[in-house]
Amino acid sequence: MNRLRPFMLLLGLSLIGSLVCAQTPAYRDTARSVDERVADLLGRMTPEEKVAQMRIFHANRGVEGDEAGKMTLSEDVKQRLQHGIAGIKNPGEHLDPVAAATLNNSLQRYIIENNRLGIPALFVTESYNGVDAAGSTVFGRPIASAASFNPDLVHRQWDVVGREARLRGMHMCHSPEADVVRDPRFGRMSEAFGEDTYLTTRMVVAAITGVQGDYAGLGNKTHIGAVAKHFAGYGQVLGGTNFAAIEISERTLIDEIFPPFRAAVQEARTLGIMASHGDLNGVASHANPWLLTEVLREQWGFEGYTVSDANDIGRLHYFMKVAETPEDAARMALEAGMDVDLYADDAYALLPAMLEADSGLMAHIDRAAGHVLRTKFILGLFDDPYIDVAETAAGVRTEAALDLARESDLESIILLKNTAGTLPLSQGDQTVALLGPLVGEDTENAFRAVAGEYTNFITDRGFALTDGASAVPVLNADTDADLDRLESLAGEADVVILFLGGDEYTAKEGFFNGALGDRATIEPVGPQDELISRVKALGKPVVVCLLHRRTLSINVISEQADAILDGWDLSEFRDESLARIVFGEAVPAGKSPVTVPRSIGQLPFHYSGKEINNKKGYLFMENGPLYPFGHGLSYVDFDYGELRLSDSTLVAPDSITVSVEVTNTGTRPAKEVVQLYLKDMIGSVTRPDVELRGFQKILLGAGERRTVTFTITPAMLEFTRLDMERGLEAGVYELRIGTSSADYRSARFRLTVPR
Amino acid sequence: MNRLRPFMLLLGLSLIGSLVCAQTPAYRDTARSVDERVADLLGRMTPEEKVAQMRIFHANRGVEGDEAGKMTLSEDVKQRLQHGIAGIKNPGEHLDPVAAATLNNSLQRYIIENNRLGIPALFVTESYNGVDAAGSTVFGRPIASAASFNPDLVHRQWDVVGREARLRGMHMCHSPEADVVRDPRFGRMSEAFGEDTYLTTRMVVAAITGVQGDYAGLGNKTHIGAVAKHFAGYGQVLGGTNFAAIEISERTLIDEIFPPFRAAVQEARTLGIMASHGDLNGVASHANPWLLTEVLREQWGFEGYTVSDANDIGRLHYFMKVAETPEDAARMALEAGMDVDLYADDAYALLPAMLEADSGLMAHIDRAAGHVLRTKFILGLFDDPYIDVAETAAGVRTEAALDLARESDLESIILLKNTAGTLPLSQGDQTVALLGPLVGEDTENAFRAVAGEYTNFITDRGFALTDGASAVPVLNADTDADLDRLESLAGEADVVILFLGGDEYTAKEGFFNGALGDRATIEPVGPQDELISRVKALGKPVVVCLLHRRTLSINVISEQADAILDGWDLSEFRDESLARIVFGEAVPAGKSPVTVPRSIGQLPFHYSGKEINNKKGYLFMENGPLYPFGHGLSYVDFDYGELRLSDSTLVAPDSITVSVEVTNTGTRPAKEVVQLYLKDMIGSVTRPDVELRGFQKILLGAGERRTVTFTITPAMLEFTRLDMERGLEAGVYELRIGTSSADYRSARFRLTVPR
Repeated sequence: MNRLRPFMLLLGLSLIGSLVCAQTPAYRDTARSVDERVADLLGRMTPEEKVAQMRIFHANRGVEGDEAGKMTLSEDVKQRLQHGIAGIKNPGEHLDPVAAATLNNSLQRYIIENNRLGIPALFVTESYNGVDAAGSTVFGRPIASAASFNPDLVHRQWDVVGREARLRGMHMCHSPEADVVRDPRFGRMSEAFGEDTYLTTRMVVAAITGVQGDYAGLGNKTHIGAVAKHFAGYGQVLGGTNFAAIEISERTLIDEIFPPFRAAVQEARTLGIMASHGDLNGVASHANPWLLTEVLREQWGFEGYTVSDANDIGRLHYFMKVAETPEDAARMALEAGMDVDLYADDAYALLPAMLEADSGLMAHIDRAAGHVLRTKFILGLFDDPYIDVAETAAGVRTEAALDLARESDLESIILLKNTAGTLPLSQGDQTVALLGPLVGEDTENAFRAVAGEYTNFITDRGFALTDGASAVPVLNADTDADLDRLESLAGEADVVILFLGGDEYTAKEGFFNGALGDRATIEPVGPQDELISRVKALGKPVVVCLLHRRTLSINVISEQADAILDGWDLSEFRDESLARIVFGEAVPAGKSPVTVPRSIGQLPFHYSGKEINNKKGYLFMENGPLYPFGHGLSYVDFDYGELRLSDSTLVAPDSITVSVEVTNTGTRPAKEVVQLYLKDMIGSVTRPDVELRGFQKILLGAGERRTVTFTITPAMLEFTRLDMERGLEAGVYELRIGTSSADYRSARFRLTVPR
Repeated sequence: MNRLRPFMLLLGLSLIGSLVCAQTPAYRDTARSVDERVADLLGRMTPEEKVAQMRIFHANRGVEGDEAGKMTLSEDVKQRLQHGIAGIKNPGEHLDPVAAATLNNSLQRYIIENNRLGIPALFVTESYNGVDAAGSTVFGRPIASAASFNPDLVHRQWDVVGREARLRGMHMCHSPEADVVRDPRFGRMSEAFGEDTYLTTRMVVAAITGVQGDYAGLGNKTHIGAVAKHFAGYGQVLGGTNFAAIEISERTLIDEIFPPFRAAVQEARTLGIMASHGDLNGVASHANPWLLTEVLREQWGFEGYTVSDANDIGRLHYFMKVAETPEDAARMALEAGMDVDLYADDAYALLPAMLEADSGLMAHIDRAAGHVLRTKFILGLFDDPYIDVAETAAGVRTEAALDLARESDLESIILLKNTAGTLPLSQGDQTVALLGPLVGEDTENAFRAVAGEYTNFITDRGFALTDGASAVPVLNADTDADLDRLESLAGEADVVILFLGGDEYTAKEGFFNGALGDRATIEPVGPQDELISRVKALGKPVVVCLLHRRTLSINVISEQADAILDGWDLSEFRDESLARIVFGEAVPAGKSPVTVPRSIGQLPFHYSGKEINNKKGYLFMENGPLYPFGHGLSYVDFDYGELRLSDSTLVAPDSITVSVEVTNTGTRPAKEVVQLYLKDMIGSVTRPDVELRGFQKILLGAGERRTVTFTITPAMLEFTRLDMERGLEAGVYELRIGTSSADYRSARFRLTVPR
């Protein structure tokens, strides 16, 4: 109950203030602090009004706008707005930015004018690869961003997202995903930043500070608030299936799953946190007071609001079956620390009636509504709730934004393999075949624009992987004739570029049997292995552009291809970006954000697992990953010198440094991601084999040599010890610096911890 | 330190006693209690002698016997015995029982006569499918025993094991496995009793009480002590690889992994517990005081000894890397509660030297040595250490024992599929082909003996699955000619019986790259799918005898076969048993002890998982298991009547009963396993979808109807609640009674828990 006291105190103070100065409500007084304004406002609100500040509904209930943004509201929506509302999801999502801004101004005006105290609403979107609304810049997905190993780039990308969202009248996004995703069966893996805790943490901080305008952008009305999700463990759903139960020990949670969330709160100051669908070790995450209150508020000092995932409070009753009644579901979530009910009418909608029998709920309701109101004050919604539509058109999809999308692609594409310098292709007189199921509508045009006039193109998608239409997609069956045709076309070319991987139906957010998205295998679907084998047999150079939304065990593709560019899921300039790398206009600079397994049966398989897990062998197959975490080639070679430590002993709380000279031995400028891994040689508990603890992406000119220095701080060495306290343990550590988790130089140092 | 007090107290009392009565050492006085004798003996021992009682070495160090059991000891062994020894593993394992008994008598005599206080040694074996030594009755493996769903049968089987072991001079077995194994990638899954906690618990209790002669057999010198292993979580090694890390939440541990161990201690009174190779949530199991002392001793009252798995104390240093030095490894294990060091010279061998610097270790050493000495007193070794060899020959491999092996097979073979009554085959004039890689040396003879004179047989193994010779087995590659021949032979037969599955090299205890045993897939190896598809295309009835040591996703076999008999791994009478069922001399009566997945990618997949996990769907494949847990057909049908509850409310601590009439609607006697499952409809934590909580195997004559009654007790409904206390929660429960986990009748009752 401790967490309620500040509110109650402020509430009391504010009521006194209100009596003294009745003409100017304190909550309207911009000179007062946010906490004072919240307390004052809460003191004026009815229970119905407070509970309204704990609910978000979707605009598809009946918020409509025409092409000019002229608003129509359904009776249902008007009913929902009579006591105010916490927020509305995706109003105007199908309108262009100007129309959306117009609509959202009208909607905000309606809301303010139709609730007693004039409380504005939050308009909420999602934004993992750009604002999820018409007319926005479309970036690559987070898994591709992670491959850039460039947090500054990701920060700039999400800065664009925040600006574009605010300009169309939005205030919050239910992004980014701070989940560490280690199961490629999971259909949503492309929405997060890969398997590594540290990389995910850096990217989540970059994304949140970007979209929130480094926090200052919120009050300046240039940016929007972030909601980091899904707290906690969603990346490890059992069996890789959405909604599934999660089993993770407390030690692993604290050391490997929590850090991106903790950094989201403490470093990036996220305004919101969304809970995870399922349970965690048996406890439903939407009713988990340890997660939602003890860890988030008491340990980390989170001051924003917590929000449910879609319908998940009501689901505590009918789906998770941990609540006897819908009322119990509402009570459990509320008391555990869940502030906002997303979408459904079966949970927090019941609170006003429940209050009659249990007035003790009011303190929790004040807490929850207070967190939402606080957010609205921080966003400036009470003081200046409308968008200047005149600024919208010029601010969205700017040339700078579109160039940034291109730049992001070029930094994200990973050169997995490049036998005998197959890539880059020359721009000379040649015929290039662009074949395979991932060839897009504009692929040939994009490649033609880059390749120049002397290159001829043959383009044929051949076959689609799935029917692409059903609610439950099915694999395309009749492909024999297509394969014959593609083989024949390949025979006419000097070079064959195959576009392989997975389409949008082979990896997506999975619901139940009516809308699946998870897979039980990570083999490429359809006859892609056969396609590349037949093309390779022709003796032509074969380049693969791999496009996919989950890790694929591309054993055959990897063996048959001469070169592989792994793009994951790129921006709207996908084809242009691939072409620029294929023809050497740009140099690949991405690194794999995941360990690529040879088989689904090797899971769980991430480079930072326990040593024995990663060195394990199975019968009848080659050991180890197909491609290690952090792997990515360039068109040049980088030479790493010997490691130089400032001291062979790190005496906490001081630091030491390690330096290495990196040389671009090639003939053109290129970027390299210099990676720092740490390995605890002995711990009181079994330790990760090795952990990424730093990286620097550097641009080196042809022949250029640069010294790269990392500071090794005690904080990098902390872990949850045998005594369950997170802290240091003296002993020997190995540090590795290299071009991937498997290609490095190493040195050792000793950590001493004075008492 | 509480756990040390009884010993210290008795030690004190005993020292006084020794002074009073110096002529007759108390530890030699059979009138005294075991505790008194242990305390007296400890008081007389040097540190070296005590530590010797904490070490077991393997007889391959140089304990040799000739065919007559005449003993030779290496100098190394003599050196190891100078202060006595806790035990020796597998002395005489390659000798026939009489020679082994002779050798072991000589060995025991040497030991007693060559240590100062005349302390005898434990001779230790393993026994999961019979005594692991020459000349013993060979039963099916535990996974096949589990399929019998007949604990009485398993009790009788392990009773034979205990007798045969003691008759050859053994005293302990490092068996049974009490691990709940839910990962078929794991090469050792056949050594345990399947995926279910309750079934495993009943089988472990049956095995231990059997091998220990219901405990009374220990003192009567007819049986041996059991060592339940591997504590804890070994069945869920990450990635299914031996030695790997284990992540299981405390709630799941307590509710699903601990019960077989707890019952081993409290119900079956096991004399020993062996720890698990790896770690558990980061804590090495061999140095885990929570597992080895708090849970095992303080919560469960275990009084036997704990023993390491092979070399695992030393491995805390060089393999698990949780100990800075070998000395630290020894100290950590000892202080955590590990009593006996199996095999290696790098851990407890260091304790005498360590004592000089740290006398505080002595209390732990007294505890550990005391547990071992206690075991020796209980086994009667001080009073009567030798075997009457005259009894040995007549007592091993008796007709009754061999018949029991046959009976066990017949109860274990599962009829997975039987389209249109394909089985049983008639004994008429016909040609039967026995084909495939699992055909054994004596298969044709065994089938011929059962089928009678009018049946002709064609037999051809065709191809071996693996080369069967290398340390790292490889798959057999050149099988095309073999397939052609088998297809041709099948064409000559009226019925084809294919022997498919996996050989001993495709699933075994895996070590490192030099000796693998785990797999990353559960597809049948080699061209077995092709074989059955080609044979099936001939239009003949195809019967599959499936023999394997891990769950296989037999999608193609299952689709192509007309009938499937799943034998897992049967006794030495494997072929005879299969023939008797094929030709209808016996009726199949086994039930699947595992959920058979369609794909490795569905893992973890056990019927008692969370509801959402088990209902999950994946893209591009059929949902659910290929065969559900508890499934098994018969040659008759069983009709289940309506469930009748004695009361619709269970008021704790009372019980209710549920009855069902089961009718054999067929024309011959047959056994059915009537299965009881319980489902908690709402819990404070997410609950297993459903849990087996009872079963009864009944024999029904043709047309016979019988009422089967189960008592539902509150204990069946306990679980670890949100508050982490194990107990009851009022509410509605569903009970299901049926022929499998997927084919049942259900009813509901309410549990009320008076305050």
